[in-house]
Amino acid sequence: MKLLENRILTDAKVIGSDVLKVDMFLNHQMDIGLLNDMGKEFHRLFADCGVNKIMTVEASGIGIACIAAQYFSVPVVFAKKGANKYIGKDLYTAEVYSFTKDVCTTIGVSKAYLNSSDRVLIIDDFLANGQAALGLTSIIEQAGATVVGIGIAVEKSFQEGRARLLEKGYNLKSLAMIKSMENGTVTFC
Amino acid sequence: MKLLENRILTDAKVIGSDVLKVDMFLNHQMDIGLLNDMGKEFHRLFADCGVNKIMTVEASGIGIACIAAQYFSVPVVFAKKGANKYIGKDLYTAEVYSFTKDVCTTIGVSKAYLNSSDRVLIIDDFLANGQAALGLTSIIEQAGATVVGIGIAVEKSFQEGRARLLEKGYNLKSLAMIKSMENGTVTFC
Repeated sequence: MKLLENRILTDAKVIGSDVLKVDMFLNHQMDIGLLNDMGKEFHRLFADCGVNKIMTVEASGIGIACIAAQYFSVPVVFAKKGANKYIGKDLYTAEVYSFTKDVCTTIGVSKAYLNSSDRVLIIDDFLANGQAALGLTSIIEQAGATVVGIGIAVEKSFQEGRARLLEKGYNLKSLAMIKSMENGTVTFC
Repeated sequence: MKLLENRILTDAKVIGSDVLKVDMFLNHQMDIGLLNDMGKEFHRLFADCGVNKIMTVEASGIGIACIAAQYFSVPVVFAKKGANKYIGKDLYTAEVYSFTKDVCTTIGVSKAYLNSSDRVLIIDDFLANGQAALGLTSIIEQAGATVVGIGIAVEKSFQEGRARLLEKGYNLKSLAMIKSMENGTVTFC
């Protein structure tokens, strides 16, 4: 998606060889106009998949998922991190290792909001090693539901996530695919 | 807002005398159509406040804030919880005690995304004791920016939050104001 690629080239900051800071428009401050254009593009890519629910994981995927959901006219469910006495005990859970924070987190979704007839589109802001996306696919499949697609805003294609998800047969589409970030310069696939 | 009140009466669950579970439509599974109606109502209530930025705190406020921001044509900034090596060190922070989780959490916003000319509308899903909203007002005021309004989806008016925010002179508007939840029955103000 040219618009997102251009925005990355203009505003994003490369830190070292593998961190891309996009928190000026995507995941701390959010440009809602851009999120709308991304939502339309996700809909174009997954319109024929029979999506009846969008799933993401807190926190930075939620805004993107909610704006995109308007184009599908479906609800959003986000997986919660950690334990919380009000989320309830009847959960599907998965363990997700975050390279960003160097911790393993349990993510959970109440069993009430996923059932075996659901056709779920996963949406998230980043794909790097694929841990969060794989955690979500595990939760969806525990419910007997179907992962009909995985839509990612920014994919670091030089890391493991893409290969891991394709290996399992998922329908993965990313709006911006980064081949490398050598010497502080972003190159797209 | 009658639509939200009716949805609470139909779907929400009262637990004990002070917990209202609305995670089937508001803060775990999100009904995006309802969020749009709420966004329009927030815009009606705060349209003349010169809002140029909406702020919330992760995670459950993000979806509501992003959908509402479309009606104001402004960006959303969400305060992040805890430390994270990629958010950076140059932050405005506040301590927020969560009665839900019985922990004190540091929330932070990068200084890059708040400046003294900002006129900020705070949006959140719940107002109970007012801790999260007060943390956000503190962050906004550290930046020299102005809190032009606080928009809440569901207010438990029998708790301290409303009084605390009004005492400080904030322009608080809540879409559903709950007077009591005695015997499992929700009564609105």
